[in-house]
Amino acid sequence: MNIGIFDSGIGGLSVLKEINRILPDESIIYLGDTARVPYGDKSEQLIIQHALKGTEIISRFEIKALVIACNTASSYSLPTLKKKFNFPIIGVIKPAVKAALQVSRNRKIAVIGTEATIGSGVYHRNLKQLDSNIEVISKPCPLFVALVEEGWVDGEITEKIIGRYLSELLEENVDTIILGCTHYPFLKNTILRYIGNNVILVDSGIEVALGLKQLLVENGLLTDKKQESIKYLVTDNPERFKTVGTRLLGRDIKDVERI
Amino acid sequence: MNIGIFDSGIGGLSVLKEINRILPDESIIYLGDTARVPYGDKSEQLIIQHALKGTEIISRFEIKALVIACNTASSYSLPTLKKKFNFPIIGVIKPAVKAALQVSRNRKIAVIGTEATIGSGVYHRNLKQLDSNIEVISKPCPLFVALVEEGWVDGEITEKIIGRYLSELLEENVDTIILGCTHYPFLKNTILRYIGNNVILVDSGIEVALGLKQLLVENGLLTDKKQESIKYLVTDNPERFKTVGTRLLGRDIKDVERI
Repeated sequence: MNIGIFDSGIGGLSVLKEINRILPDESIIYLGDTARVPYGDKSEQLIIQHALKGTEIISRFEIKALVIACNTASSYSLPTLKKKFNFPIIGVIKPAVKAALQVSRNRKIAVIGTEATIGSGVYHRNLKQLDSNIEVISKPCPLFVALVEEGWVDGEITEKIIGRYLSELLEENVDTIILGCTHYPFLKNTILRYIGNNVILVDSGIEVALGLKQLLVENGLLTDKKQESIKYLVTDNPERFKTVGTRLLGRDIKDVERI
Repeated sequence: MNIGIFDSGIGGLSVLKEINRILPDESIIYLGDTARVPYGDKSEQLIIQHALKGTEIISRFEIKALVIACNTASSYSLPTLKKKFNFPIIGVIKPAVKAALQVSRNRKIAVIGTEATIGSGVYHRNLKQLDSNIEVISKPCPLFVALVEEGWVDGEITEKIIGRYLSELLEENVDTIILGCTHYPFLKNTILRYIGNNVILVDSGIEVALGLKQLLVENGLLTDKKQESIKYLVTDNPERFKTVGTRLLGRDIKDVERI
């Protein structure tokens, strides 16, 4: 049985990387909906429709648990997906929210993400639900995705863009920033250099991988043999996925199947 | 009868602006395929499919001529569309190519655009076809679209990004640069400041508007009454189109209909 990862495109590779690191024996099927990427500027209705379709495709494989790696899809579609499919499905929002609440000392937490994720207010809502005294500052950073896909993950331009987006968060004195978009972990080192040591970055990829491990353990679903394998499926343009993905992951992505 | 403008999203507003300026009495129907934007990282097959669908939608209105404003769609889908529909259809490639060939003195022309437009080689092919002695340098500038949609059309970051993309074109001594993406004219002033007075920018929006005027005159299709009106249709997220579009056009976009 496989772990499924569904993402709107290529950014979910940051989640795959952590799942593969934390659960190295598991076999993974990754589906990137590259025909419809990005979800970040689309409407709720359309995002749910795409997530349903993607989950339907990935459910044709033997899936023991599914991770919705895309923050935008996690924001809008989880309730619908959970009603419709009977394997466990986890999104990236809740694990990141829990981690942020654990690490923040001054109770001022920032969330950065795409327009749709920030506009959905999903992080704000989830943080407030677990602790109504938390102060939440949300900030869309639309250029980050383009920077990552272009491979400009450090250097002067990237530093200046990071500064432009994040300076107000630092002025507001947040001590924790949730990376609410799967592309953003690829900028982590440069963001860390900018924000310094007093602010903690929460990477939902790591948190969701830890949450997934716990879920598999609790349900007796951990693999008992070493069967590491990663299968990549995309809905369009496998060549671009190969090129950009290989650059992002820092390791060769060979077989990408268009489905 | 209306002039139809089809675009993958919002960038085509730069073309609409010029058509409205050069043909102010005409009534325009603009369709932005915001449910499937961007086309720039998609495959040829999918782009043709989307362009067919969009043209089919816009053909339900009374269209006397259709402009395919999106460079990516113009690159791949024009032959298919022309076979299928019987109103005149013009893309943005040929008018820009003709203009560039007219203005270039040293016969070194650069084209900038999305990955898909540059990857298609369509400008290169069209330039060479009309003048095999032309030297063509092509450069994808993927961050430009994000900059425009974010409203960062000038300022230090934008200047540095422009410099990073365009410096090699200046080193190659091109004297003409074709803006091969509808978003790019919104960066025109900042690009002009960077490239200086010795390099000419070709804005396909202006060229296609002039070409359209000629086509209407030649076919006796110019309107004989003042019927200026612009109708905006989108396939998703009319609110975002309104907000970003109003900022880009510098004038209020009111009625946007989801279709």
